Amino acid sequence: MADHTDMPDRTAPLRVAVAGASGYAGGEVLRLLLGHPEYRAGRLEIGALTAGSNAGTALGTLQPHLLPLADRILAPTTAADLAGHDVVFLGLPHGQSAALATELPDSTVIIDCGADFRLTDPAAWDRYYGGPHAGSWPYGLPELPGARELLRGATRIAVPGCYPTVASLALAPAVAAGIIDPDVNIVAVTGTSGAGRKLDVGLLGSEVMGSARAYGIAGAHRHTPEIAQNLSAAAGNPVRVSFTPVLAPMPRGILATCTAPVRVDAAQARAVYEKAYADEPFVHLLPEGVLPQTGAVLGANTVTLQVTVDPDAARLVVIGAVDNLTKGTAGAAVQSMNLALGLDETAGLPTVGVAP
Amino acid sequence: MADHTDMPDRTAPLRVAVAGASGYAGGEVLRLLLGHPEYRAGRLEIGALTAGSNAGTALGTLQPHLLPLADRILAPTTAADLAGHDVVFLGLPHGQSAALATELPDSTVIIDCGADFRLTDPAAWDRYYGGPHAGSWPYGLPELPGARELLRGATRIAVPGCYPTVASLALAPAVAAGIIDPDVNIVAVTGTSGAGRKLDVGLLGSEVMGSARAYGIAGAHRHTPEIAQNLSAAAGNPVRVSFTPVLAPMPRGILATCTAPVRVDAAQARAVYEKAYADEPFVHLLPEGVLPQTGAVLGANTVTLQVTVDPDAARLVVIGAVDNLTKGTAGAAVQSMNLALGLDETAGLPTVGVAP
Amino acid sequence: MADHTDMPDRTAPLRVAVAGASGYAGGEVLRLLLGHPEYRAGRLEIGALTAGSNAGTALGTLQPHLLPLADRILAPTTAADLAGHDVVFLGLPHGQSAALATELPDSTVIIDCGADFRLTDPAAWDRYYGGPHAGSWPYGLPELPGARELLRGATRIAVPGCYPTVASLALAPAVAAGIIDPDVNIVAVTGTSGAGRKLDVGLLGSEVMGSARAYGIAGAHRHTPEIAQNLSAAAGNPVRVSFTPVLAPMPRGILATCTAPVRVDAAQARAVYEKAYADEPFVHLLPEGVLPQTGAVLGANTVTLQVTVDPDAARLVVIGAVDNLTKGTAGAAVQSMNLALGLDETAGLPTVGVAP
Amino acid sequence: MADHTDMPDRTAPLRVAVAGASGYAGGEVLRLLLGHPEYRAGRLEIGALTAGSNAGTALGTLQPHLLPLADRILAPTTAADLAGHDVVFLGLPHGQSAALATELPDSTVIIDCGADFRLTDPAAWDRYYGGPHAGSWPYGLPELPGARELLRGATRIAVPGCYPTVASLALAPAVAAGIIDPDVNIVAVTGTSGAGRKLDVGLLGSEVMGSARAYGIAGAHRHTPEIAQNLSAAAGNPVRVSFTPVLAPMPRGILATCTAPVRVDAAQARAVYEKAYADEPFVHLLPEGVLPQTGAVLGANTVTLQVTVDPDAARLVVIGAVDNLTKGTAGAAVQSMNLALGLDETAGLPTVGVAP
Repeated sequence: MADHTDMPDRTAPLRVAVAGASGYAGGEVLRLLLGHPEYRAGRLEIGALTAGSNAGTALGTLQPHLLPLADRILAPTTAADLAGHDVVFLGLPHGQSAALATELPDSTVIIDCGADFRLTDPAAWDRYYGGPHAGSWPYGLPELPGARELLRGATRIAVPGCYPTVASLALAPAVAAGIIDPDVNIVAVTGTSGAGRKLDVGLLGSEVMGSARAYGIAGAHRHTPEIAQNLSAAAGNPVRVSFTPVLAPMPRGILATCTAPVRVDAAQARAVYEKAYADEPFVHLLPEGVLPQTGAVLGANTVTLQVTVDPDAARLVVIGAVDNLTKGTAGAAVQSMNLALGLDETAGLPTVGVAP
Repeated sequence: MADHTDMPDRTAPLRVAVAGASGYAGGEVLRLLLGHPEYRAGRLEIGALTAGSNAGTALGTLQPHLLPLADRILAPTTAADLAGHDVVFLGLPHGQSAALATELPDSTVIIDCGADFRLTDPAAWDRYYGGPHAGSWPYGLPELPGARELLRGATRIAVPGCYPTVASLALAPAVAAGIIDPDVNIVAVTGTSGAGRKLDVGLLGSEVMGSARAYGIAGAHRHTPEIAQNLSAAAGNPVRVSFTPVLAPMPRGILATCTAPVRVDAAQARAVYEKAYADEPFVHLLPEGVLPQTGAVLGANTVTLQVTVDPDAARLVVIGAVDNLTKGTAGAAVQSMNLALGLDETAGLPTVGVAP
Repeated sequence: MADHTDMPDRTAPLRVAVAGASGYAGGEVLRLLLGHPEYRAGRLEIGALTAGSNAGTALGTLQPHLLPLADRILAPTTAADLAGHDVVFLGLPHGQSAALATELPDSTVIIDCGADFRLTDPAAWDRYYGGPHAGSWPYGLPELPGARELLRGATRIAVPGCYPTVASLALAPAVAAGIIDPDVNIVAVTGTSGAGRKLDVGLLGSEVMGSARAYGIAGAHRHTPEIAQNLSAAAGNPVRVSFTPVLAPMPRGILATCTAPVRVDAAQARAVYEKAYADEPFVHLLPEGVLPQTGAVLGANTVTLQVTVDPDAARLVVIGAVDNLTKGTAGAAVQSMNLALGLDETAGLPTVGVAP
Repeated sequence: MADHTDMPDRTAPLRVAVAGASGYAGGEVLRLLLGHPEYRAGRLEIGALTAGSNAGTALGTLQPHLLPLADRILAPTTAADLAGHDVVFLGLPHGQSAALATELPDSTVIIDCGADFRLTDPAAWDRYYGGPHAGSWPYGLPELPGARELLRGATRIAVPGCYPTVASLALAPAVAAGIIDPDVNIVAVTGTSGAGRKLDVGLLGSEVMGSARAYGIAGAHRHTPEIAQNLSAAAGNPVRVSFTPVLAPMPRGILATCTAPVRVDAAQARAVYEKAYADEPFVHLLPEGVLPQTGAVLGANTVTLQVTVDPDAARLVVIGAVDNLTKGTAGAAVQSMNLALGLDETAGLPTVGVAP
């Protein structure tokens, strides 16, 4: 990686490939790359774009919003097609990244938007995904304690799940500071793109518009162990997680309501969060009384938080909003790329949402 | 009321008035009355329709879906205009029902869709609504223990709030059976009509579509004490309630996620609910693994529930879906009217939703 | 059919089957049947429910809003399964109805929600659907001139397409009265359910929410010849039709904007429509200045119309709203059944929409 | 203006004010300015932000997506508050811009997102807006014939209406080339933000979600004369316009269907459009068979078009998609600013939409 991070010596542009370019994660990575200052300065090139069953198709028919790349033809997702790139983003179904990664050089920066390398515990992997565990990579959520350092110069990065991003940022300061019991309750409302571009009757517009429904309840959702892993690491002790995802009729966004038995008052809780995120460019603790809304972070790499205490229920209440595709997936991927390559961490990452 | 409930003796049709006919609650009461078998049989007449600032307007311009009543001109909401009716539905801003009710005869069946008479505790009323407490009326949620009996023949009925309807039905069996700790966590996603037909920037279509946001968090929402009241009554002891409402981009529907520390396993929990609702026509415990969705109860007087246990989190998880305007407001009002008048409790109340 | 229409002689309940019960058309037929007075009186039974790939599944998992039928297991769609019913509704992909119909007795009332028997012109069929033409059946839009008579006592009925329903009702009076040139322009905005419950990336919630798009433009949509057929029949001469369908982010509803060069003024045009629909229970000409909206007819068997003249453009402008699944499909099917069986034409058909 | 367009001599940063910063147009101008390369390079400062009734409020509570400006307090909209800026964007109710403009120096670049200076014909102004006509300014749609030249170095600019933007770009090439009759039919589906942040019952989320409705039909909409003005100028002769706007349940976007009697075939029509927009960075003629969708241009300054001929109807069919707030308003405003100041016309204007 030294030749990448030592920018002055680099003469050829960085070459970046995206595997899974026809999916939502891949499309969002490309949207961000097209606006990245390195791309606009000609120092970053968008190389191979690959897909599974969509290989051979022009990107424009699948991702019509990516007009500058409309004529690109999708290649198949093979190691050969991805070879010769400095950075490879993977937006693949879980289980495919591990095999592909072994075929690419160690010096290639691989940023996996899938789940293969997120969990550290093989038992948790087997229980939630099934089969042998591929291992774990540096975790692309720099705002977690200790995470940023591991990402600088890394050549293998596991991008967090969308729910774990907002849930972990919403609760890590509290568990780290010991102001709550290690027994948290999370209910997160999500837009439909979190499920990917999957042909499923339950994801048809006719089914989702005008309707809300829970799914993967009672610990069944695969993001549950990932949230527990993050919070337990922040706490230094196991944290018990009750997690319920709810599908709402919107394309993007997660609004997470996180509560836990609390040991301090609202002002003390707020102080913990102010301190934790004082220097973070992408995590905003909103002014008292202002509540996060997903629409305000649409397309942005921002997480907005509000924290308070319900004295009657004796619980901490943290609300967090994130765009599942941006900070929840592709934004974290690009943020991680920036750190891996020694670029400005915030480069190419919008902090302003598209609203209304 | 004797002359109403003794149906055989009644010769003249029942006359029913709706105050607040230009609002969402009033409109939904009218929608249900137009499909009520007593109305279709000519034994129930829709009399005065009143409004506040909309008085003088034709109903058709305000409620264009109520085509058979399109030419009706709204009267002002006064006791004089509401006099001479057997049943009066009130869909008014809180605080207005109490004054109006004192001006109507004791024999008139008054069914208040507002909050004035829901809370039994004056201190809770003062804290959440402010000012003197008007008292409490029989509570229009017949599925709660002991409630149905108080509604038969009643002439004053307080219709529950929409959130308390689904939250109470979702948790009352568990607290009554003592299978959970009296410390519950509720996050409920709602459609926009729950806020009424109110001119508020935050309720504009441009603001709500594509966005989710929490509001009234940390015990601030007025439905919190009502939920606590219902659950505490069912438990026979105080129940602590953490309640977070979340606004989602849909016109109707509430999807409530309710959890609490549990003392039994999933099968035992399910058995409690099966028993509690075995004979209820409007509360459906879905088959194992099938999750409630608001779209399936749209326009119906149905609450669908799923109950299970998250063994890792050691919590009961109950998911409930309801149409906030039907079973959550106007359906409960008509169900209560049926009980008050000695009609079939289910008359005029759809159990089939409009989907997709 | 004589034994069906001569109601007094019938002793056994009517048996009704629905083929394609897992689709949107079939589901809506069932929703309406469950509210039909004949069903509620026990004189109409819901018999076989069939499906293609969903055969063997409980209806409740596919149509969770049809709670009273949740436990019904779907049979395969075969003539044997559909035998022994008095009425069979078909909600099948086009091309399947014709084969099935020949295997059922002539006395069975077959009501086809598909396209097979809508077009009278074999050349139009071949051009738009391909292959040999199965013929044409009485057309289930009783409000068109001459149509109602053909439906009384009929045993084979072709339910109109959803667009042709509203477009034909919006323009037939004008072409019949000769107040416009036979050269009409129709742009119709539709909800997603019009495309059926089809696994198609373009129909995913993530794709349709927040977006509008045209499709099947420039005469490519299969409903174009059906509209032309209806209007030409009403005019007594060929009518040229420019038709553009637009997909909008809503589950149901069609809002059609229909214009044509006009020869009269607004008052004269209005008089033509007032006369045409004066006695129709399901077609409402709204008061001057009030414009149709699809939300107001959601779930109802109603078409609302507004008609005026744009003097600068010298064009008639007719706006029509319909629920594509109710009056646009299943409502028309039940209305046709009522006529076929000699029942009250309006039985079981809501005129009140579910709003907001 | 010379000191502005002669960039090398300018030493102090440009100061830009936005009047009406609490509205949707003003908010979108600010979103684009925050991403503008001149702003990021420190050569453009965002100065006064003003509002009407919202003066005194922090921008963050009204435009929570504009996080970098969240602490800015809105000033009242007065000439004094807007003085001392090089560029002033006006996002005000119509009728207010004219008065304000006279109080600002001639050298200030005023870019009016309102209607005051769009129409050249005083009679059209009086008919559609009422009262005396303030005059007309260079029209901020550079893609129209002759428009770009007038915008370079201009100090007074009228930003087009959102409908006229897409309708004019969709039809101007055809009328200019004489390939259609001057008698066009436009039906345009719009998102709700086009109506502004206006407290109106008909714009509440509960009313718009799940529903489509036409409004301002038969030439009543104020954008009708603006479309006619643009097309007539392009044609060199009067063009008759039938225009129907339709409100759909989405926050942003216009999908326009434009038809007219045609004199050429599809290939010839396509050639006209290819030539007209070959060099335009923001107008994209999509490949044959690919249809515009508003979701693909969300947040982008792009208009996508498809053109073909319906041979049966003998009509040209042009479909256009635009984001009403970006290219339809604020993007055009910034594009005009770029031209006025001699900057790169495309600076700060995204061509990539946010999708899904």
